[in-house]
Amino acid sequence: MSNDRKIIECVPNFSEGRDLEKIEKIIGAFRGKEGVKLLDYSRDEDHNRLVVTVVGEPIALKDAVLEAMGKAIEVIDMREHKGQHPRMGATDVVPFIPIKNVTMEEAIDLAKQLAKEVSEKFNLPIYLYEKAASRAERENLAKVRKGEFEGMNEKFQDPNWKPDFGPDKVHETAGVTAIGARMPLVAFNVNLDTPNLDIASSIAKNVRFIGGGLRFCKAMGVELKERGITQVSMNLTDYTKTAIYRAFEMVKMEAKRYGVNVVGSEVIGLLPMEALIDTAVYYMGIEDFSLDQVLENRLME
Amino acid sequence: MSNDRKIIECVPNFSEGRDLEKIEKIIGAFRGKEGVKLLDYSRDEDHNRLVVTVVGEPIALKDAVLEAMGKAIEVIDMREHKGQHPRMGATDVVPFIPIKNVTMEEAIDLAKQLAKEVSEKFNLPIYLYEKAASRAERENLAKVRKGEFEGMNEKFQDPNWKPDFGPDKVHETAGVTAIGARMPLVAFNVNLDTPNLDIASSIAKNVRFIGGGLRFCKAMGVELKERGITQVSMNLTDYTKTAIYRAFEMVKMEAKRYGVNVVGSEVIGLLPMEALIDTAVYYMGIEDFSLDQVLENRLME
Repeated sequence: MSNDRKIIECVPNFSEGRDLEKIEKIIGAFRGKEGVKLLDYSRDEDHNRLVVTVVGEPIALKDAVLEAMGKAIEVIDMREHKGQHPRMGATDVVPFIPIKNVTMEEAIDLAKQLAKEVSEKFNLPIYLYEKAASRAERENLAKVRKGEFEGMNEKFQDPNWKPDFGPDKVHETAGVTAIGARMPLVAFNVNLDTPNLDIASSIAKNVRFIGGGLRFCKAMGVELKERGITQVSMNLTDYTKTAIYRAFEMVKMEAKRYGVNVVGSEVIGLLPMEALIDTAVYYMGIEDFSLDQVLENRLME
Repeated sequence: MSNDRKIIECVPNFSEGRDLEKIEKIIGAFRGKEGVKLLDYSRDEDHNRLVVTVVGEPIALKDAVLEAMGKAIEVIDMREHKGQHPRMGATDVVPFIPIKNVTMEEAIDLAKQLAKEVSEKFNLPIYLYEKAASRAERENLAKVRKGEFEGMNEKFQDPNWKPDFGPDKVHETAGVTAIGARMPLVAFNVNLDTPNLDIASSIAKNVRFIGGGLRFCKAMGVELKERGITQVSMNLTDYTKTAIYRAFEMVKMEAKRYGVNVVGSEVIGLLPMEALIDTAVYYMGIEDFSLDQVLENRLME
């Protein structure tokens, strides 16, 4: 009945995308648990990888992830793992994402708590990454995972790359896990009425952070061959600071330079309600709007 | 933990806006009830009226309203009631509003179930109104309530105005209650950069239903004297058919005729998430968007 229940999301990635029996054992840790809800999971045979989306109350969620990691250790042997996606552990990466009544600090604390518990229980080395990172060079997951499973024992020799928790020795079958905290990602694409990929790519370069554009925007040009159009495909890594309407309007503005029009957009997967409400508030100039005015935010939980 | 829990809203109006002890007795029926959440209540001394906003699971909510109506019968004597707002009963009007996983038909059924139970339990005459009305001329609450408490016994003599439930005789102290079902109301105002009320009123006349405008829009011009501006103040009675962005754009369009600009807008009170998401989807042309993509819609409840 309380409206201030803390809700956190977790998107753990496991290195098994083929064996349905093994996958079901891992997923099972998220089923029928009080305070935990399995939202989605998808496996990819080429990547040989399982991506789970689960939400819940912080402690219940952390405990379920711990259990799932135990299952992954039971059923996955990294010495035999092959797949197209880079990976270093049976549980490869575990990001916690604050959703409701949870601060980023709490998500970071939860990541550290899980890191401590899982490292002690399974003698597993853990790197903390993104917002939970212990130093700047560990924020980027790609850098943390560089060397992959096979190269991790060598990496541990470098004093700069000692794991944050657990032994300085790779777990023989389960490898190494990265645990962290981040904002929800919004995957937002804007469609252009041109088949010219160069134009979409040029616009992408101008709107993204590394090109001098929006601070929390990654972008690339993409062809939609079937429709004969292109799109600017974006990842907004902090929608509270780089609003989606701002990314949309910036793409529209840049498209003008090429005489190209925006013909629509798309949101891939899930996004927080606030990201869209902020958009409505912007376009209609709604004054003094509060999220408490949204009926669903007032419903019992 | 289920995401398909049915949620319905009820906004009962009681004829007591002054005596806090009596008000607390009525409100008490909505407190501490499993499956029921009191969102808000406001009393008005001039109107001598109490408006309660409560949400819950259909049966639990209906039972709580029944209990509150019993309390209202205990503490209110309509023979002594005076106030500026038209009224005909201790519990004057009870609208049920479908919010989540509930159809309008279910809201209507719940209204009828309450009407039956309350009429039998307290020997109270009931009119069904709006979407629950038994005939077209009972849809409009103002028509149903015409004659007010003092005139109801006479109204009952007209064969067209027999109550839908209960005796053909006004309850001596509790009068008559209207019970019905309706869509959520969205109170949405658009601000204009003119102090000229005639302009705001003219625009209001053109955008509202009775003036040839939008089907589910009521509107009037209002002065915001402190700010030296005016506004078109609207009630959208079915936001799923008369979208708020459409009302906004129509006001903007009409304002041009007077060389006047829209300088902002405001939402008064609560509104359903969908009304704003629809707005964001419109302005950014988001293709194939589903409400299931909103993270909060997937959270446990």
